[in-house]
Amino acid sequence: MFVNRRNVHIEWGDCDPAGIVFYPRYFAIFDASTHALFEAAFPPGTRIFEHYGVLGYPLVNARAEFRIPSVYGDDLMVESHVSEWRNSSFSVEHKLYKGERLALEGFETRVWAAHHPDDPKRIVSRPIPQDLLDRFK
Amino acid sequence: MFVNRRNVHIEWGDCDPAGIVFYPRYFAIFDASTHALFEAAFPPGTRIFEHYGVLGYPLVNARAEFRIPSVYGDDLMVESHVSEWRNSSFSVEHKLYKGERLALEGFETRVWAAHHPDDPKRIVSRPIPQDLLDRFK
Amino acid sequence: MFVNRRNVHIEWGDCDPAGIVFYPRYFAIFDASTHALFEAAFPPGTRIFEHYGVLGYPLVNARAEFRIPSVYGDDLMVESHVSEWRNSSFSVEHKLYKGERLALEGFETRVWAAHHPDDPKRIVSRPIPQDLLDRFK
Amino acid sequence: MFVNRRNVHIEWGDCDPAGIVFYPRYFAIFDASTHALFEAAFPPGTRIFEHYGVLGYPLVNARAEFRIPSVYGDDLMVESHVSEWRNSSFSVEHKLYKGERLALEGFETRVWAAHHPDDPKRIVSRPIPQDLLDRFK
Repeated sequence: MFVNRRNVHIEWGDCDPAGIVFYPRYFAIFDASTHALFEAAFPPGTRIFEHYGVLGYPLVNARAEFRIPSVYGDDLMVESHVSEWRNSSFSVEHKLYKGERLALEGFETRVWAAHHPDDPKRIVSRPIPQDLLDRFK
Repeated sequence: MFVNRRNVHIEWGDCDPAGIVFYPRYFAIFDASTHALFEAAFPPGTRIFEHYGVLGYPLVNARAEFRIPSVYGDDLMVESHVSEWRNSSFSVEHKLYKGERLALEGFETRVWAAHHPDDPKRIVSRPIPQDLLDRFK
Repeated sequence: MFVNRRNVHIEWGDCDPAGIVFYPRYFAIFDASTHALFEAAFPPGTRIFEHYGVLGYPLVNARAEFRIPSVYGDDLMVESHVSEWRNSSFSVEHKLYKGERLALEGFETRVWAAHHPDDPKRIVSRPIPQDLLDRFK
Repeated sequence: MFVNRRNVHIEWGDCDPAGIVFYPRYFAIFDASTHALFEAAFPPGTRIFEHYGVLGYPLVNARAEFRIPSVYGDDLMVESHVSEWRNSSFSVEHKLYKGERLALEGFETRVWAAHHPDDPKRIVSRPIPQDLLDRFK
């Protein structure tokens, strides 16, 4: 299983008047962590979406389970992996640790997507390329 | 059932290089919509958290189901209500419509919370006040 | 002089642990207010950038002068206008009022820009179209 | 002169439909870089604001000069220093480099501030402590 780990420093601007992380910021961390996971599977600097001619991997659904709040100055370790590959979609799980403790978990289902060839305003799913799958083995 | 409706204009800065809304922004819309729902239950200008001596209603979990992408310039109508009250927590549902079509749904579970009286760094749940419940009937 | 006014409600997520607006959020308000100013000069729903075949009006510089802090729940009135038109760039001024009082001011210089026809990665300035200028008179 | 350097990876969610960084995100980078500059002057983990009993260093003004746009996947190096100390305020300069090239510059004027002892809603400036100044020499 291909796992990526990255550190995230909680910034002043991530936090709200209660002093804890404003929760949508965690989803931005999930998003960046999914990108980091994919980037880690390719040579540095690869423009993955351009390489495959897709527009990206927009979301079908997203979910978070919050356990321990974090505050400005905290350092979190994010551990991400693809938990399931399907034909044209996949699921990603993120675990965010504060020291030894699991602070929160994130779950994303994303679709491998491109602009419709005849109507660039429409977004259509695409089969996930085999050589992309191979990189995650 | 107490329902609040508000309009949201999708801004340029809400959207990503694929031209569609960067998904964490939807959770910021959910959050603002929960606040709008609560504000609608009180006289204008009420500082609800100060009124009850709480720090807010942080998240236990949050989820979104995305159906139709939105782009810069779209106008969405958000319909929000509390779907369940429990002793010290509650659930909120948001439906976002683009015209007649349901574009996405959001689900939040939140806890009514205050700083611990002896240790202001700790966050503890509090029973939801009856007169708050009464306002949502 | 063509002026646009819009109301902005300060959201919980706009504010930081000091309880006041996290300052980059004001620049997002400026950006949305520039878009609102342009939208107000066209029939509703016009996709202005597509109409002119440009990618937008990226920033040359931006500045803010902060006078009065704002907190969650405040309502601000934003007054925006183009203060100067040049060949391929223009300046926008935003005044944000809290009641009668000027809370802050924003200043943006932007360039009317398109992708280079031979190299879509390059961004080049374009002369501002006369009929765009006419709409602001 | 005390200078701090940090690397910033441009995230997908930092960028707009034109494919370049949504400019308010740069101010969030400036803000995080000012915090990183201060953190670098203290032992790791110091809660600086709590240590001095202040609420922070809110902005008097902020400005950016944009030279080269950045896109998703770019790596920027941020170089930050305090350019001037005054009695109760100070100025910070940030230079953001893309490789060898200066991509943009940021300028912030901030005030060392606390809640008014008799009215916690009011924010008042405070003289900058000598031992804080000493750490930046």
